[in-house]
Amino acid sequence: MGAYRGFVTTESAFIAALRTLATDPAARGLLDDAAVLEIGGAELVLTHDMIVEGVHFLATDPPGDIAWKLVAVNLSDLAAKGAKPLGVLLGYTLADDDAWNEAFIAGLRQTLSAFRVALFGGDTVAASPGTARALGLTAIGLAEASPSRAGAAPGDHLWVSGTIGDGGAGLRIARRELDGPAALVERYRQPRPRLELGQALAPFVHAMMDVSDGLLIDAGRMADASGLAVEIDLAVLPLSASFISMLGEDREARLDAATMGDDYELLFAAPDAQAVELLALAERLGIPLTRIGEFAQGAGLRLRDGAETVPLPARLGYEHVPK
Amino acid sequence: MGAYRGFVTTESAFIAALRTLATDPAARGLLDDAAVLEIGGAELVLTHDMIVEGVHFLATDPPGDIAWKLVAVNLSDLAAKGAKPLGVLLGYTLADDDAWNEAFIAGLRQTLSAFRVALFGGDTVAASPGTARALGLTAIGLAEASPSRAGAAPGDHLWVSGTIGDGGAGLRIARRELDGPAALVERYRQPRPRLELGQALAPFVHAMMDVSDGLLIDAGRMADASGLAVEIDLAVLPLSASFISMLGEDREARLDAATMGDDYELLFAAPDAQAVELLALAERLGIPLTRIGEFAQGAGLRLRDGAETVPLPARLGYEHVPK
Repeated sequence: MGAYRGFVTTESAFIAALRTLATDPAARGLLDDAAVLEIGGAELVLTHDMIVEGVHFLATDPPGDIAWKLVAVNLSDLAAKGAKPLGVLLGYTLADDDAWNEAFIAGLRQTLSAFRVALFGGDTVAASPGTARALGLTAIGLAEASPSRAGAAPGDHLWVSGTIGDGGAGLRIARRELDGPAALVERYRQPRPRLELGQALAPFVHAMMDVSDGLLIDAGRMADASGLAVEIDLAVLPLSASFISMLGEDREARLDAATMGDDYELLFAAPDAQAVELLALAERLGIPLTRIGEFAQGAGLRLRDGAETVPLPARLGYEHVPK
Repeated sequence: MGAYRGFVTTESAFIAALRTLATDPAARGLLDDAAVLEIGGAELVLTHDMIVEGVHFLATDPPGDIAWKLVAVNLSDLAAKGAKPLGVLLGYTLADDDAWNEAFIAGLRQTLSAFRVALFGGDTVAASPGTARALGLTAIGLAEASPSRAGAAPGDHLWVSGTIGDGGAGLRIARRELDGPAALVERYRQPRPRLELGQALAPFVHAMMDVSDGLLIDAGRMADASGLAVEIDLAVLPLSASFISMLGEDREARLDAATMGDDYELLFAAPDAQAVELLALAERLGIPLTRIGEFAQGAGLRLRDGAETVPLPARLGYEHVPK
């Protein structure tokens, strides 16, 4: 998730130092959406994301939505590895506010039930009065052969699921910066991790990740991890009718959509030969899958709008800590 | 760990509500030290503990010791289930304080190396200025047949490893409430989870847990979970020479030791027939194992001092959230 929004120097140094500790292959160099641990022929996929009051949510946000988001962003990491979720461990700072705690539990119940995920355990600790809530979740899933971010090959197409920009547009509505359809606020507040799709895609793809920080920054990370260049065509970016009704579909709107983040769609690399099967799979699951770019030898991210080359925007998405 | 030290009503209600969500057998009703999940013939043991600045540690505590404690308290939960640790996921709130962050990483490196545990991943999030640090750790281990808290049988002896009261005495020294040997402060600041011992004990015991909140409260929890009564003999409580030099060994000192918490020793129930093998194991590992009580039909905790019955103290240990 778009977790880290400050202290970039401190952060970079911290992550670089952590990376020197994460030498086990399961850690994937802290460069993937999740850790992948081989246990008796199966792959156990593990991820841990935190959300903090005042950084990722406001004290006035509906607690049920916060529970949903905490679970959903972690499950999205599992989806990106093609994993079926098994359960979660919750880390919860308990403030002396019964109504908030009860609403959080109700939201957690609804979320776990919606995704058929078990609560395995966790920890609840007292928050000193005035302390921001810090919520952590560990999600555990099982996969067969989970794709990494690093497997794209030259000539592979870059694909994305669903539509891009809806969550970011929803955030602007929630913040009252702009007016727009309530469906977009829902996309922001209750993202739907692509669990079934991720499991179905895993056998066909060379690389996969979720789009949480912005399509451009995340696509660039996949290209970097794979040691390749990637070029994206803004003209074919999948936008929803709601997004278009609110922000239009010109180049500016498309650049906006590609850098907003909070999409929780799947981004993946697949060889041309898989296109027919991927489109059949999209049809079967009722989820659009769109080819938006190509990988090539080289390095870096390039943009075009149809035939026209487009310079990269100054900001590609949210800079934050890789997981 | 002795995590929860306030809002008992809110806490009880919160945990009761969480428990209604934790219906998967792996969750063990949120009544055990860890969740235990069967994966392809093996048992995966999962635990998540948080520590919060101002609640579990002070901003002025050495960051390396905080890293140690965060890892050690989680590994102690794995030890209690006889699990061999595989790795951890870290949840870290990053404040703009390079010296603190660097010292934390150095301590984490030392701790992971000391226990030969991998860093698998995690999340780092920005802390808003002035926000208390909240650190979470998920530890993952593998076991063969992990004992629960609930398996004690009538007639079983209650055993404890090592010595009791050292961590609690160390905390009083660290807080400058009393003077005493530096070795006790070390016991408080750098607890040593009984990993090797836990794995060796698991095949011999009916029930096992770690002592984190106080021997009496934790023994009472094992008896409750097993549907039995337990009686403890204060006269045989294992005390260290350092503890005795500081606090003596009269009944008051023994009650103190039995209710202080922060021991991270193993507490277990085993049938009389295993005593010889257990004492041989203690000899082989160089860790004292002491029979301190017996389980019987009935309910509740009773105390004696040799032949004399002793009334229960008002406070048995730290009340907090079961994990």
